[in-house]
Amino acid sequence: MDKSQGEILLGWAKDLYPICRSLTGPGVRQTLTYIQKLLPEMEIIEVPSGTKVFDWTVPDEWTIRDAYVLDAKDVRVIDFKLQNLHVVGYSEPVNEFLDLDQLNEHLHSIPNQPNAIPYVTSYYNRQWGFCVTHNQRMSLTPGLYRAVIDSDLKPGVLNYSELIIKGETDDEILISTYICHPSMANNELSGPVVTIGIAKWLQSLQKRRYTYRIVFIPETIGSIVYLSRHLEHLKQRVIGGYVITCIGDERCYSYIPSRAGDGLADEVAQHVLHHIDPNYKKYSWLNRGSDERQYCAPGIDLKIASITRSKYGEYPEYHTSLDNFDVVTAQGLEGGFNAMQRCLEIFEKNFYPKVTVSCEPQLGKRGLYPSLSNKESGEQVRIMMNLISYCDGDHSLLEIANLIQVPFWELTPIVDKLIDHKLLMRN
Amino acid sequence: MDKSQGEILLGWAKDLYPICRSLTGPGVRQTLTYIQKLLPEMEIIEVPSGTKVFDWTVPDEWTIRDAYVLDAKDVRVIDFKLQNLHVVGYSEPVNEFLDLDQLNEHLHSIPNQPNAIPYVTSYYNRQWGFCVTHNQRMSLTPGLYRAVIDSDLKPGVLNYSELIIKGETDDEILISTYICHPSMANNELSGPVVTIGIAKWLQSLQKRRYTYRIVFIPETIGSIVYLSRHLEHLKQRVIGGYVITCIGDERCYSYIPSRAGDGLADEVAQHVLHHIDPNYKKYSWLNRGSDERQYCAPGIDLKIASITRSKYGEYPEYHTSLDNFDVVTAQGLEGGFNAMQRCLEIFEKNFYPKVTVSCEPQLGKRGLYPSLSNKESGEQVRIMMNLISYCDGDHSLLEIANLIQVPFWELTPIVDKLIDHKLLMRN
Amino acid sequence: MDKSQGEILLGWAKDLYPICRSLTGPGVRQTLTYIQKLLPEMEIIEVPSGTKVFDWTVPDEWTIRDAYVLDAKDVRVIDFKLQNLHVVGYSEPVNEFLDLDQLNEHLHSIPNQPNAIPYVTSYYNRQWGFCVTHNQRMSLTPGLYRAVIDSDLKPGVLNYSELIIKGETDDEILISTYICHPSMANNELSGPVVTIGIAKWLQSLQKRRYTYRIVFIPETIGSIVYLSRHLEHLKQRVIGGYVITCIGDERCYSYIPSRAGDGLADEVAQHVLHHIDPNYKKYSWLNRGSDERQYCAPGIDLKIASITRSKYGEYPEYHTSLDNFDVVTAQGLEGGFNAMQRCLEIFEKNFYPKVTVSCEPQLGKRGLYPSLSNKESGEQVRIMMNLISYCDGDHSLLEIANLIQVPFWELTPIVDKLIDHKLLMRN
Repeated sequence: MDKSQGEILLGWAKDLYPICRSLTGPGVRQTLTYIQKLLPEMEIIEVPSGTKVFDWTVPDEWTIRDAYVLDAKDVRVIDFKLQNLHVVGYSEPVNEFLDLDQLNEHLHSIPNQPNAIPYVTSYYNRQWGFCVTHNQRMSLTPGLYRAVIDSDLKPGVLNYSELIIKGETDDEILISTYICHPSMANNELSGPVVTIGIAKWLQSLQKRRYTYRIVFIPETIGSIVYLSRHLEHLKQRVIGGYVITCIGDERCYSYIPSRAGDGLADEVAQHVLHHIDPNYKKYSWLNRGSDERQYCAPGIDLKIASITRSKYGEYPEYHTSLDNFDVVTAQGLEGGFNAMQRCLEIFEKNFYPKVTVSCEPQLGKRGLYPSLSNKESGEQVRIMMNLISYCDGDHSLLEIANLIQVPFWELTPIVDKLIDHKLLMRN
Repeated sequence: MDKSQGEILLGWAKDLYPICRSLTGPGVRQTLTYIQKLLPEMEIIEVPSGTKVFDWTVPDEWTIRDAYVLDAKDVRVIDFKLQNLHVVGYSEPVNEFLDLDQLNEHLHSIPNQPNAIPYVTSYYNRQWGFCVTHNQRMSLTPGLYRAVIDSDLKPGVLNYSELIIKGETDDEILISTYICHPSMANNELSGPVVTIGIAKWLQSLQKRRYTYRIVFIPETIGSIVYLSRHLEHLKQRVIGGYVITCIGDERCYSYIPSRAGDGLADEVAQHVLHHIDPNYKKYSWLNRGSDERQYCAPGIDLKIASITRSKYGEYPEYHTSLDNFDVVTAQGLEGGFNAMQRCLEIFEKNFYPKVTVSCEPQLGKRGLYPSLSNKESGEQVRIMMNLISYCDGDHSLLEIANLIQVPFWELTPIVDKLIDHKLLMRN
Repeated sequence: MDKSQGEILLGWAKDLYPICRSLTGPGVRQTLTYIQKLLPEMEIIEVPSGTKVFDWTVPDEWTIRDAYVLDAKDVRVIDFKLQNLHVVGYSEPVNEFLDLDQLNEHLHSIPNQPNAIPYVTSYYNRQWGFCVTHNQRMSLTPGLYRAVIDSDLKPGVLNYSELIIKGETDDEILISTYICHPSMANNELSGPVVTIGIAKWLQSLQKRRYTYRIVFIPETIGSIVYLSRHLEHLKQRVIGGYVITCIGDERCYSYIPSRAGDGLADEVAQHVLHHIDPNYKKYSWLNRGSDERQYCAPGIDLKIASITRSKYGEYPEYHTSLDNFDVVTAQGLEGGFNAMQRCLEIFEKNFYPKVTVSCEPQLGKRGLYPSLSNKESGEQVRIMMNLISYCDGDHSLLEIANLIQVPFWELTPIVDKLIDHKLLMRN
């Protein structure tokens, strides 16, 4: 039996889960290489540490080989090899003996989530530290400890990758996801795997109206790097797009607007979510938190929105070791994939339909009126007539779908039929 | 004692009730001839069957002389002479013996309205049939029946009529009502009789700002015919108007917008209904159902709205023999007439008033301030001052009425007084 | 110990309280002379009775020297010297014997506020009368009375005063308050004293962007006079402003819009009140009642709004002897003063900020990121980032404050810091 889309996505996520990603370093490259096997046309790019990118500088590359805390008996009481969240991201190397009080200054835990290992980083401030469950922390007894972090922090490169899928026009849709978080499932692996799935689906289409620009980047610094290299091109070509993240659990759907809030990506996202989950959560620009912060910044204004399931910062497992495959499921990923697919289908199929006859067309003589009248066929005629009544060439199909309160995807087969009967044309 | 307006309207409706109208045929001509006696300037027009009108073709003319079902004893168990709803509209001629099962295939009834004869037509699909109460249907016993329909379906004409009442300008208001339903009172006779009343009232006015174009047509095909013959003229001249139908019962008032929803007819209708029935029902374009479907079709866009009382499709007696003079009353018709009259008065009297003095005028020196101050006169001064405060030449009187929350018709005497005192002028 | 702002304002109000003001006359001059001592640059202007001003005429000057009612024993049962509200404003002179019934025709009282002396005037209708508490009125016994009003009503002047405080630009903000009511504290003395306080504060500023035009006028006729003399100048220069009245009690805050409702004064007032009193009362133009009636009249349209505390007409003591220093307090006046000051500070400091870098700036390298992370500092960073995210040169700082739901005055120190770091510039 073939795997479902959700199971395929989940499989990729599980493969990528153990890798220790960060802004830079071997974990990122290992992740991008894995993705490249799935999307061979994708190009991996490297940018040297120290490169100026707008107001920022590409940081040194971080390599982490091992990290642990030994107790007085040389037992690893904290061990990065078991769980890569144990080490603070971008920790500088250390090899020190400390008593418990000294050690505690370098420990992070969450008292009211005592079973969760928190995810902590310190990218732009040289530090070192370990993250543990609060229960484990409480169980540490006074005595001598040795903290060892076998890491490098030195000039290297920042990696990201880019996949361009050509369409019939040069207008582009930008899809961005990030690959800088270690072993957590919803934030972030749901993002890259749904993006891979979307990319493969786009490639499978016979033709595409739009060109798709898909990037896998480290968050924040990665989008700043990318914008600094392609700004004029993006400003001219990109008509909309999405940041894909936190899209793999089975809870609610959520929408985070672009800064202006009035882009086609916004309109499309709200239409899709309204119809697949009427109780979806609608956040505001003030609740933003990922790369839309850069894509929509003043003067850049790419009108990139986001669809998530449980939004980052809004679910209890966020940024802890509990964000695992209890949270992210095949069904959750498939729902997220479907929502994104619906969105892009609308981008592809939206147009300004115009009826070709004056007054209502006579459907009966074309066999478009149901011969056997019943409630369902009556509803279909009602939808068809409502649709036609707005096909004035001034309303897009998406606007019409909103006006007549029918999902876009239920209108497209009707539109195709009406075009076949030469009752509709493109304006 | 003079008859009330409602009683006059009810009298016409009762005269017209027995006639068996359809899209075409003698019943329509008989109806239009009756109306022509009341409105002698009205012209009756005929259009040959087979004429192409946009996407449609004028159908054959239907003449129905008799229709009945005989039982085995030659008793008329169903008899068109008793109630013209008994025959399916546009039934082809038939003269057949059938057993009960065969007969049942040609019968229509409403199980959950067992005392109602339904109204059924089959204009564009050759059929024949009878409509009965469900109780009667259930009482039919097995046996041999003979179904006889003495009808013609052959090339002839479609009739409609047109009345132009000239005004001071060439700008036109279109009023459309339909005359294609057999013996039912709210849908449709309330429409034609209120329209006759409105036409007579318009003719009685000393002068009119607008030219009124009033048509009595068969629904759908009639408006398509009319539009096909006058489209350019109508698009240039018509500034708004109404479809008049279902306007004779005593239940709620209702408003159905034009497609754009922003025409003067829309604004006026909502203002009038808000003040005569604050709980009036506001439908959307998706609830449309009469000739506004054609008048407001894409590319035609005449901004024709509707005011009804119980809207078609929304009251239990709709399209059955129960839609009779238990539903439509003198009081119901008079209310509908008054609402339409209010609307047209606003069209006639609306203008952009402009105050002639800077700052507030001094009302006292003109005797416009009440000498004896009490609550009522204080309210009158407050209304006058609120009115004046918006007379900047940019707000229409209707807009001002909405802003200050006073019915338009309460403002017109105040406006007249202020114009007499040269405090207001037309912008 | 220095007096608080509220105590200073209350002191001025108590000084002005005993003066018997009216539209014209010695009480107005005495009041303006007192104010001129506090604002020496202020000019007092006089306009002769009989001067035509738009639709009005400057009335005769009223001088009241004494007024009383004697009973049969020559005892003053009503005495203007004790309370100047006892005499109807603009009463003509009288010296008559009357019985109780005759006297009652000239008495005014409020049955359902039996301890309140009402405030009554008759500016444009020659009359005389006395105002008393309803309790006193009921206690008057039948017998002979003598009514004496020692007043003049003859050609003289109308007085008002004007203070111009120059700013860096010729654009003006108009502040208007009235000085025509006798001994009442909220309506009206709170208005003039808060205006004096605001004028002194504006004069104390090292520089001002705008020029401030501050007028102390008799209500209605005063603003009409003022507009008739300066209309073209005001229409060209005034960008907004406020009528200041009823701003001294401790109850709610209120906002009355300009006629258009969309001026900067409107936007500013609503922002300030939303943040200092989320439950403030928002009135409509239909609730207007002071000189905004003239300033916003059609064709004048200065976009003058009002901030009050308990609005005129909306508190029980309004226009009675109960509107005294039980109603108006130091704390109430200080609150009103602060609200007005906040408004004018926003006028002075509003601008269109534009971020100088592409993408988000890196706050960390500038020390703008808190070194010690806690909830409060996190909130500060969040506000700063939200602010920056809207600094596109198209949103004013006031619009941004509304978008990010933070008081304007909390943003100005952040803006200053960002300008110091060259991260923001003026568009």
